[in-house]
Amino acid sequence: MQRIFGVLILGLPLSGVAQKNVTENLIQYAHPIVGTQKMGHTFPGATIPFGAVQLSPDTDTLSYEQDGKYNPDVYTYCAGYQYKDKTIVGFSHTHFSGTGHSDLGDFLIMPTTGPLQLNPGTADKPQSGYRSVFSHKSEVAEPAYYKVKLEDHDILAELTATNRVGFHQYTFPKSDQAHIILDLMAGIYNYPDKNVWTFVRVENDSLVTGYRQTNGWARTRTVYFALQFSKPFRHYGSRKYDKKQAYRGFWGRFDQTKNFPDLAGEQLRMYFDFNTTEGEKIKLKFALSPVSTDGALQNLRTEAPGWNFDQIKQQGQQQWQQELSRVVIQAPKREDKENFYTALYHAFLSPTTYMDVDGQYRGLDQNTHKTEGFTNYTTFSLWDTYRALHPLFNIVQPKRNADMAQSMLAHFQQSAEHMLPVWSHYANENWCMIGYHSVPVIADAIVKGNAPFDANKALDACVTTARQQWYDGIGLYTKLGYVPEDKSGSSVSKTLEYAYDDWCIAQAAQKLGRQDVYQEFSKRAGNWQNVYDASIGFMRPRLSDGSFRKEFDVLSTNNQGFIEGNAWNYSLYVPQDPAKLIQLMGGNKKFVPHLDSLFTMHLPDKFFAETEDITRDGIIGNYVHGNEPAHHAAYLYNWTDQPWKTQERVRMILKRMYHPTPDGLGGNDDCGQMSAWYIFSALGFYPVAPGSEEYAIGSPTVQSATLRLENGKTFTIQTKNQSDKNVYVKQMMLNGKPLTRPFLKHSDITQGGELVFTMSSRPVMSK
Amino acid sequence: MQRIFGVLILGLPLSGVAQKNVTENLIQYAHPIVGTQKMGHTFPGATIPFGAVQLSPDTDTLSYEQDGKYNPDVYTYCAGYQYKDKTIVGFSHTHFSGTGHSDLGDFLIMPTTGPLQLNPGTADKPQSGYRSVFSHKSEVAEPAYYKVKLEDHDILAELTATNRVGFHQYTFPKSDQAHIILDLMAGIYNYPDKNVWTFVRVENDSLVTGYRQTNGWARTRTVYFALQFSKPFRHYGSRKYDKKQAYRGFWGRFDQTKNFPDLAGEQLRMYFDFNTTEGEKIKLKFALSPVSTDGALQNLRTEAPGWNFDQIKQQGQQQWQQELSRVVIQAPKREDKENFYTALYHAFLSPTTYMDVDGQYRGLDQNTHKTEGFTNYTTFSLWDTYRALHPLFNIVQPKRNADMAQSMLAHFQQSAEHMLPVWSHYANENWCMIGYHSVPVIADAIVKGNAPFDANKALDACVTTARQQWYDGIGLYTKLGYVPEDKSGSSVSKTLEYAYDDWCIAQAAQKLGRQDVYQEFSKRAGNWQNVYDASIGFMRPRLSDGSFRKEFDVLSTNNQGFIEGNAWNYSLYVPQDPAKLIQLMGGNKKFVPHLDSLFTMHLPDKFFAETEDITRDGIIGNYVHGNEPAHHAAYLYNWTDQPWKTQERVRMILKRMYHPTPDGLGGNDDCGQMSAWYIFSALGFYPVAPGSEEYAIGSPTVQSATLRLENGKTFTIQTKNQSDKNVYVKQMMLNGKPLTRPFLKHSDITQGGELVFTMSSRPVMSK
Repeated sequence: MQRIFGVLILGLPLSGVAQKNVTENLIQYAHPIVGTQKMGHTFPGATIPFGAVQLSPDTDTLSYEQDGKYNPDVYTYCAGYQYKDKTIVGFSHTHFSGTGHSDLGDFLIMPTTGPLQLNPGTADKPQSGYRSVFSHKSEVAEPAYYKVKLEDHDILAELTATNRVGFHQYTFPKSDQAHIILDLMAGIYNYPDKNVWTFVRVENDSLVTGYRQTNGWARTRTVYFALQFSKPFRHYGSRKYDKKQAYRGFWGRFDQTKNFPDLAGEQLRMYFDFNTTEGEKIKLKFALSPVSTDGALQNLRTEAPGWNFDQIKQQGQQQWQQELSRVVIQAPKREDKENFYTALYHAFLSPTTYMDVDGQYRGLDQNTHKTEGFTNYTTFSLWDTYRALHPLFNIVQPKRNADMAQSMLAHFQQSAEHMLPVWSHYANENWCMIGYHSVPVIADAIVKGNAPFDANKALDACVTTARQQWYDGIGLYTKLGYVPEDKSGSSVSKTLEYAYDDWCIAQAAQKLGRQDVYQEFSKRAGNWQNVYDASIGFMRPRLSDGSFRKEFDVLSTNNQGFIEGNAWNYSLYVPQDPAKLIQLMGGNKKFVPHLDSLFTMHLPDKFFAETEDITRDGIIGNYVHGNEPAHHAAYLYNWTDQPWKTQERVRMILKRMYHPTPDGLGGNDDCGQMSAWYIFSALGFYPVAPGSEEYAIGSPTVQSATLRLENGKTFTIQTKNQSDKNVYVKQMMLNGKPLTRPFLKHSDITQGGELVFTMSSRPVMSK
Repeated sequence: MQRIFGVLILGLPLSGVAQKNVTENLIQYAHPIVGTQKMGHTFPGATIPFGAVQLSPDTDTLSYEQDGKYNPDVYTYCAGYQYKDKTIVGFSHTHFSGTGHSDLGDFLIMPTTGPLQLNPGTADKPQSGYRSVFSHKSEVAEPAYYKVKLEDHDILAELTATNRVGFHQYTFPKSDQAHIILDLMAGIYNYPDKNVWTFVRVENDSLVTGYRQTNGWARTRTVYFALQFSKPFRHYGSRKYDKKQAYRGFWGRFDQTKNFPDLAGEQLRMYFDFNTTEGEKIKLKFALSPVSTDGALQNLRTEAPGWNFDQIKQQGQQQWQQELSRVVIQAPKREDKENFYTALYHAFLSPTTYMDVDGQYRGLDQNTHKTEGFTNYTTFSLWDTYRALHPLFNIVQPKRNADMAQSMLAHFQQSAEHMLPVWSHYANENWCMIGYHSVPVIADAIVKGNAPFDANKALDACVTTARQQWYDGIGLYTKLGYVPEDKSGSSVSKTLEYAYDDWCIAQAAQKLGRQDVYQEFSKRAGNWQNVYDASIGFMRPRLSDGSFRKEFDVLSTNNQGFIEGNAWNYSLYVPQDPAKLIQLMGGNKKFVPHLDSLFTMHLPDKFFAETEDITRDGIIGNYVHGNEPAHHAAYLYNWTDQPWKTQERVRMILKRMYHPTPDGLGGNDDCGQMSAWYIFSALGFYPVAPGSEEYAIGSPTVQSATLRLENGKTFTIQTKNQSDKNVYVKQMMLNGKPLTRPFLKHSDITQGGELVFTMSSRPVMSK
């Protein structure tokens, strides 16, 4: 590729970034296809950074149920696309990136030629429906651009997007049977009755509006659209696949299946017919809105007034270049750059924009709200992303991160339960996973001075959330100091995470001078000790009578008091106080070999089957990188006398868990958390405890990295003697002065400066 | 009753009405209970004039289907209440008045005592559920007030309402098991799956918000609510009766059935628990909105900020007094006044207000719109109401009628089909019945000078509507000059009504100087002649080959080319040109006896069974007053040499078809059309052809009537020698000058003045 990118692009929130042009094309290194094979659950399609639209091919639309039973294969289609597949069903407009559960897949578009087929057909018999065979040879997946040949229809499909508009360009053969299908039944993680309602209006010969309302992972979710065609359709029609229409009555006089502009029902598919000449391009602009079809139209007209596909694509790629150039690295190999910028690409997909161009969005109360001074975001996979993604944003996306915190606070204001988000998307709380991990995101922003909002009010929201007695064992947790397993499952995980979240509240309270809150939550922050069984050296489920549960398997993840982790991994989860943990676990002498074992032990086969969300690729020994609870574990050596082991382990994990290939991710990317781990670790440090200002030093893989901060400053990382073998840190110089402890402060970064690592092939044995 | 009513009430649109106090309590004569027995389909509950809330008892909630088949009994429950019933299920907030099809019945509230029962139970075993036995002895139904004793629960229920807020007052016995049920599954004309979605939030210990979305007669309909209790509930809970909740997932951790504030699903019932002391009153304010729960809350706080039930009731009754006093009559008997003011009451129920206090409403496109300078109305039963109800409004409610026309024009603007409303309610077109009878309403307003909006744009909307080739035979109608029965059923009715509607367009065009439109539609207005079969003297279905259909039964209403009428009734339907019709039918000599026969012939039993929507009570001879097509028929004698027969017939119909008793209506009140017929006829004139300025004179039943017009003028009708026997008009003096033709002009009324009838027991035989 021979593109030159400038820095100044209209409307980007980059005004504070150092205005030095980055002339290297960085998007060449970012590969949306990474993670689409096996369990990465990423999508290869077109989207802009944090965009509301993710326009991407779906290779299957499995139903959640098959013959009345859960269909386990559906899990592999969280992002709608599996690299192994041979057919594409169509292109839908909303996708999660890397989640372990799913929803979305709204408004599937498929261009076809030949006799009209309104059913998708099956993968083994693609000609039985509108889907098409495709080949990876014809496939191009770049940031903000996707291209593929739909072989069955001889159509070249190209996709790009603005924030709220999916832009399709289909190059047709000569045909008097050219069709565009709009499948309003298709969706990801589709239940037979996931569609609650569908409403469509054909406004004129090239404009269609409507909405789709679903009951999926989001219980009450409506997405509005406006679809503009570049060419008037000759005919259009629809088929209804449900019996709903309680009173057919006088509607019965009209043939609603053909050229009837006013449709509604539970299950609908539509088609639009064209004649095409050889090589004729039909373009579609598909705008979304959380609020209304009026909003979608406004988004369409504002963001994509014209029909120049290449221009939209170029704008999208310029936005990516802008965002990726917030961190400019040099690395030994092209593959390192590919891993890095692919990770940065994935880290910049979610949370997603959730408001119209005029600031209107749907609130948790299903009312229309309007933001004041911030961009509203959704898709908060907080149990994952509080760990490294939001801390990464506090460095390289502080404005967006503060807006995300404000979005969470708006959620709190609108919550009937008076809770900050747990796992929230599209004006819904889905309660996925445990803890109240909005708290570390908000506390981290406050502690790091990135809270341009009413921080005391934000702290109040954290406190109110943490005091909700009805929520998932908190009542007993506050009474007993731990969640008893006989009353509330996954009790150890909950206790550990509540304790950490509580520590975050205390840190924010201290920063804000709120002593009473600091006292209350500092005390709660120590609750992790209540589930530590010194007799076996593991965290262990405790019962409401105070005793530890007798039946206990430290390797199993199955009903042992943990979630997405076993006792080995989770027992290390005291990010707020590793020193104390190490002390309780017997000090360096006992702890270091224990931690070593995590990475080196042989996990019996039977435990793989029960480890959720990841393949065997995501596990090293008994260390599960494919899930999050032990993401900080490799950095814990920094609190022992052997920090060099952190350097070693981190380099090993970086090497084994990340590849710039479709199967390059060892587990779900989890809305960017896995990628954020990569970015931090590749840069040489990691936020073990968000809510503190400290980063633990690891071992950078880059040759150099420049963080181009929004405050106009830059922080540069240089490595000397960098190589694949030289994984050990011999010396660190911060702005010319030696850094003697393996820790870096947030303000060291934001003040700008330079950190120089001197690498070595041999560990530096002293702390 | 001893109430004194003043005229000036804040916020009423009566500023133009002559400011002379009417001290007689008129609401004493208006009986909401009239029409609740048999097929009147009225409701007895509390509402204000044209109010958005109709808070009324439902005596049964039959399902549209029973054992998979249509349940014919459901038809009798269009308004939710049947006088014969012994039990009340609860009080719901929305009701049509007098329709022949139905919907609504939203948000059923029932107060109970004793063990909680969440199912309604059955009429034969009321104790099997929350419903209660009641007696008409304890029942009071007044405008804006309803009271009844719920015997099973020992609770006195009282209801009143503002425009958008239903106000409940329940007087409880001492109980520690007092409940308020909120049944979100209940509804009128309920299908098993009419509920599409339900969403509820318990905002705090006394405020609940949410919405109900249905797929009923309105295909896509959502009503939002805010429910405020006067006393905090002790507990609350819910039960879900559907399996929807695709991803239970982490929701499963919470017991959503008890004190959980965040509910959604297809089928839900809720309860709220209280302890009560003897005689304790628990009050509820239940606000509706077409837009959002925010809108409902705003409506609640604006219209009913306090808790004084009596004050709200008094306000509501004052509004009724205000509206009823637009026509002040004196009549020979109390029963006449009761008939008159009950009719005026029923005429002032629909169309209903459809916007929030801030002017926001849901449009046909499901977007939120805001009115500019008018009140938005819904519930347009136009096939019925264009005949007499809207013409009545042009005299006594011109401001509202102009607003209704503007509401129709807004509908047109939002219509995907580019059509004015046919039968429209709650941001939906249900297409019920035939024709395009927004046209006569709009044309009548234009011709009568009551069009304070862009009349040319309104005419354009009429023209666009009338030219929709796809709509219900219009294509062939414009091509052939009639709708052919072999292509489109009810073809004669359609042809006749299109021709009349077209004439209306021509009249409006003439008024606006639009010659081209006038020419085009004047021509179309003559199309009725194309379905007149001179060989038999009846309108008759014609086929697309030009021939009249051979099989034909002039008495049957079943598949004879007509709808809600037979050839006898419908062949008289040329309101725009009775003179020509009479001429074609053979002139006075043939026509008069023919018309006589209509009223006097014996209709064989078998035809009763197939006559829709009415009981035998609604038929006189073969004249069907219970349906609308022949409502003008009795007035046609005015175009013959025997207008005295109009006088005679009208008085007969008035006497036989209207009684101030529960069974006092001979058919569905049809959103006020039947009542408007009464009011006009009782005053002595009738708008045979809305769209013209002329009224046909009949025979007044009043002694006197003063029309207190919004322009500040009054028009007074006096009768001399009035009695039950003196039904003939001997002389008419308009402002002291004799009126020689049996016709009155609209401007005669609006200019103010006096019309004096001298009545006689003997007909005046000359024209």
